[in-house]
Amino acid sequence: MKVWELGEFGLIELIAKTVGKCSRSDLVLGIGDDTAAWRTEKSKSVQLATTDILIQDVHFTLNIATWRELGWKALAVNISDIAAMGGTPSFALVSLGLPPETEVNNIIELYRGMKELAKKFDVDIVGGNISRAPVVIIDVSLIGKATGHLLTRSVAAPGDQIAVTGYLGQSAAGLRMLKSDLRFDKKTTAFLREAHLRPQPRVAEGQILVQHGVRATIDLSDGLISDLTHICKASRVGAKVWIDKLPIHEFLKASFKKEARGLALTGGEDYELLFTAKSKVIAKLKDIMSSPVTVIGEIVTDTPGQVTLLDEQGKAVKWDKKGWDHFESSRRGKQ
Amino acid sequence: MKVWELGEFGLIELIAKTVGKCSRSDLVLGIGDDTAAWRTEKSKSVQLATTDILIQDVHFTLNIATWRELGWKALAVNISDIAAMGGTPSFALVSLGLPPETEVNNIIELYRGMKELAKKFDVDIVGGNISRAPVVIIDVSLIGKATGHLLTRSVAAPGDQIAVTGYLGQSAAGLRMLKSDLRFDKKTTAFLREAHLRPQPRVAEGQILVQHGVRATIDLSDGLISDLTHICKASRVGAKVWIDKLPIHEFLKASFKKEARGLALTGGEDYELLFTAKSKVIAKLKDIMSSPVTVIGEIVTDTPGQVTLLDEQGKAVKWDKKGWDHFESSRRGKQ
Repeated sequence: MKVWELGEFGLIELIAKTVGKCSRSDLVLGIGDDTAAWRTEKSKSVQLATTDILIQDVHFTLNIATWRELGWKALAVNISDIAAMGGTPSFALVSLGLPPETEVNNIIELYRGMKELAKKFDVDIVGGNISRAPVVIIDVSLIGKATGHLLTRSVAAPGDQIAVTGYLGQSAAGLRMLKSDLRFDKKTTAFLREAHLRPQPRVAEGQILVQHGVRATIDLSDGLISDLTHICKASRVGAKVWIDKLPIHEFLKASFKKEARGLALTGGEDYELLFTAKSKVIAKLKDIMSSPVTVIGEIVTDTPGQVTLLDEQGKAVKWDKKGWDHFESSRRGKQ
Repeated sequence: MKVWELGEFGLIELIAKTVGKCSRSDLVLGIGDDTAAWRTEKSKSVQLATTDILIQDVHFTLNIATWRELGWKALAVNISDIAAMGGTPSFALVSLGLPPETEVNNIIELYRGMKELAKKFDVDIVGGNISRAPVVIIDVSLIGKATGHLLTRSVAAPGDQIAVTGYLGQSAAGLRMLKSDLRFDKKTTAFLREAHLRPQPRVAEGQILVQHGVRATIDLSDGLISDLTHICKASRVGAKVWIDKLPIHEFLKASFKKEARGLALTGGEDYELLFTAKSKVIAKLKDIMSSPVTVIGEIVTDTPGQVTLLDEQGKAVKWDKKGWDHFESSRRGKQ
């Protein structure tokens, strides 16, 4: 059945059924009224909100991603922003734009993908809207809260080390593999596909950063150089990055030998956390975190926003592509 | 200058400048980090969130609406949802999809239109994102709060009168005028254009409804019959509407003689409030509200969702078009 055959209100009913019962105790009203509504505790918690959009043929193509993967990713990129503030996510709203000939079953799959991730992070899908559109548009807005201090972009200080969670570059490598139909062994293929289409937001890691007094954090959506530049501009500092220290997964090294480092520097969409802190703090975090923590550089006094790449000999490396600018690529831009 | 010439991050900086200083004292972080953040009071207030999208050539065309009007409307349709819950709006996030050849000046105008309305309702624009897109997409998410009880769709009861604020049908008439380039006198033209492109969300009216114990409310976005059907389905009741009682503005009567009633019944996008309450309550509200309040029917025991139209003689009138279904028209669908 096509979306136009079921009609808007039939589709909304079906979505409400697919989303199922909401489970959060602070929810007052979910899908089915003019707005969603929830209670806040009488504590010192701060509310967080973010929104991020996926547009067909800009951020994804339907011949590459399954609808379930799209649902997962549309929510994951938003959860990652909440993680980068040191918060926990709670409620999601979904704006859908759909061509009328879209299969209804695909929409069910989309919501199943969202639901799968939502469940993992105790998120309820509580509302949204549906529109006719020339291409598929999935815009998720996500509410969350922070009970500790916020992890912001503007507090990196000279002398801080720069560290990242996990590995870099594999999401962009996954996109390349899928786009160009490159063939690798089964394990590598699954690893790269998952990296690009089912990113794992680092909520627990963000919480640990808060607990250990880290303050300057961003999630890696635009690419390492670009996102580090955001931190440096907001903090009015510069940064040095030691390119031989970049954490690159063995699957990526093996499958994209020459390009691996470039992908790690500018690839984007890894949704790992980049943060800065004193070396003592980072040493401690390395012991505690279940995902790898790698020091890749340091914050320095320099022209605000200046990111310098250094090679093994400490020599400055020229780099042309400074990450993704949304109007030249397929990445998202965060305000 | 075009958007692609300025680039994503230049555009974000320009938007932050256009939005200007945020003024709400509960705001912690606005544009410029991974999420927006705000404090909630230690009171019994409930948080509200809604999202609504405008898509080029689905909800608007650029030869009809100015960018400033688009900004106003994109925010207004969301404020209206908060009003329909008896809440007040506070923070907005804006997801923009833009063709790269969009003029930067148009984006400034868009935000000026949003800002103009935002100021009126003490709303801060605190974040969002920008993407390349094949058509213009403006998706606003809006946060608000309610300090009294919520105005929901599910509590209309047999014996309640059905009332609406303001006038009906003029927004759809405005759209028709603009689309078909119909000519009327200056005052009528301005009235119809404003009705369609600069709707006035009924926040103060929603507050008064809460104060006077009204409970069942919806805002008129899909059209009277459609939105009343939503209330009736959610409340598991039926409704009778006396079509000779519909509040139709004299400008609409004069300019769309034959179609006026049909537009009032199914036109949509008037963003007035429809509510149900005992006759005594509504009589009181008529005295208090600055906008007209008109009783147009009553809630009855019937098949849930059954809306019956009655003429001057109390005879049932057949009506084919039951309002807008999003996949057949250009209206929005609320989850």
